[in-house]
Amino acid sequence: MRTVYLNGSFIPENEAKISIFDRGFLMSDSVYEVTSVVNRKLIDFAGHFSRLQRSLSELDMATPLNYDALLSAHRNIIDKNNVSQGLIYLQITRGSAGDRDFIFPDPETTTQTVVMFSQNKENLVDNPSAVSGIKVISIEDQRWGRRDIKTTQLLYPSIGKMMAQKLNADDAWMVEDGYVTEGTSNNAYIIKDGKIITRAKSYDILHGITRSAIIRFAEEAEMEIEERNFSINEAINADEAFITSASSFVTPVVNIDGQNISHGSPGPMTQRLRKIYIDESMKTAI
Amino acid sequence: MRTVYLNGSFIPENEAKISIFDRGFLMSDSVYEVTSVVNRKLIDFAGHFSRLQRSLSELDMATPLNYDALLSAHRNIIDKNNVSQGLIYLQITRGSAGDRDFIFPDPETTTQTVVMFSQNKENLVDNPSAVSGIKVISIEDQRWGRRDIKTTQLLYPSIGKMMAQKLNADDAWMVEDGYVTEGTSNNAYIIKDGKIITRAKSYDILHGITRSAIIRFAEEAEMEIEERNFSINEAINADEAFITSASSFVTPVVNIDGQNISHGSPGPMTQRLRKIYIDESMKTAI
Repeated sequence: MRTVYLNGSFIPENEAKISIFDRGFLMSDSVYEVTSVVNRKLIDFAGHFSRLQRSLSELDMATPLNYDALLSAHRNIIDKNNVSQGLIYLQITRGSAGDRDFIFPDPETTTQTVVMFSQNKENLVDNPSAVSGIKVISIEDQRWGRRDIKTTQLLYPSIGKMMAQKLNADDAWMVEDGYVTEGTSNNAYIIKDGKIITRAKSYDILHGITRSAIIRFAEEAEMEIEERNFSINEAINADEAFITSASSFVTPVVNIDGQNISHGSPGPMTQRLRKIYIDESMKTAI
Repeated sequence: MRTVYLNGSFIPENEAKISIFDRGFLMSDSVYEVTSVVNRKLIDFAGHFSRLQRSLSELDMATPLNYDALLSAHRNIIDKNNVSQGLIYLQITRGSAGDRDFIFPDPETTTQTVVMFSQNKENLVDNPSAVSGIKVISIEDQRWGRRDIKTTQLLYPSIGKMMAQKLNADDAWMVEDGYVTEGTSNNAYIIKDGKIITRAKSYDILHGITRSAIIRFAEEAEMEIEERNFSINEAINADEAFITSASSFVTPVVNIDGQNISHGSPGPMTQRLRKIYIDESMKTAI
């Protein structure tokens, strides 16, 4: 039985309930973050807090807990649930005004809902997928236009994972106007002739915290990076491919739509990037 | 204090709570319907039930209550809350599997969540907006690609209503690739030279229950209907414009982006259609 956080209280998970009038439930008027934990420490907490503030601000929502309060709550969740390795999920909604209305309720009289819970994942670092690589399929990107805001409108990513599962793949890369946007819950990259290629930041993709870290670490390691669009065909003909996210770190992609990338095994640059990411992130984990 | 329905029980609204792990809350994995009530009777309940089944089916969800059970629950809500005129809101989610995962939980072991509540609206029939008409603004349509499925991913429609409110308008018409898709919570129509023009059904718009009724009633009244795309510019230069939805019935649009349509007052065909709609719908209300 986990202890979860709900609006200032730490309570048993089966008692954590929200009103049916919560706008997160009725309207998806809600944002989230997922922060990874390794050796009981939070990876890039500042980056997640900063993106959270941006998501809230873009939706005209206040940030209900400041950096210190949110960090303290995260650490409490880690302690109370003995999270050695795993994830901390945080969701903030515009709250409940006691009825359903498209118009935002008055923020002065409507308390935002804040939820946090942990997920233990023993294999975050020693993940079998990092050794085997994952298989992805390509699907049309049918999400809304502001994917840079991390909202809980996750039905299509969820459908995408189901489509992948049905084809015995691990995930789906979404394609819009002929170019890959990103994976269902991760950013997408290819490597060709020693160059790392990933889509540039815009409203079209999530501004991944792990993405920013990888670009920084790759530059420090003097690897070449090009931020531009790429197609599924270019990806299949690349030397390597991989994804990044808070929960998968850097994970090799070895097959797209049934076609192997190179020899169908994780490439050397991807493996090096994963090692650099884990080593460097652990140094600054708090 | 309303009495609401939650998973088979009729309970006070302040006790109606769902798990933070409900997929409606975490993933917007959830569909809804809104049925109007006039003189304590439900308008086009069969149409709403049919669309509900389609929404659920498109998302690989079962229909947890059959027609009779859902009708009975709706009538109970009406009775317990003395709803003479108003709306019955129904939401069905994939339920909670006790944790967060993009992959759908096993339907055999995961109970769907069913919520119903009423909203009293004394002015559904004698709505001041039907006399004055409403003003709309045009905004880009940034919603996901399957608007024919009535999901609770309503953040963008909610943002659209806020954008309208800031410009002293009543609603927003969304535009994609130069053509109007629909209003934030209603279908959009113009009338030119005696012809009613509205966008054809596709994944791009909600398949409005009121829209279907209006097309049927207009045909019976020998009004000409053309299902095709139209632009904001064509709408501004039309003779009349209106919206339809379960809660607004037929409501005239008299101004778009600050420009009057004709003389800026409700047109005769729109007023006639509203009257026909209300008269005919009441005859078959149950």
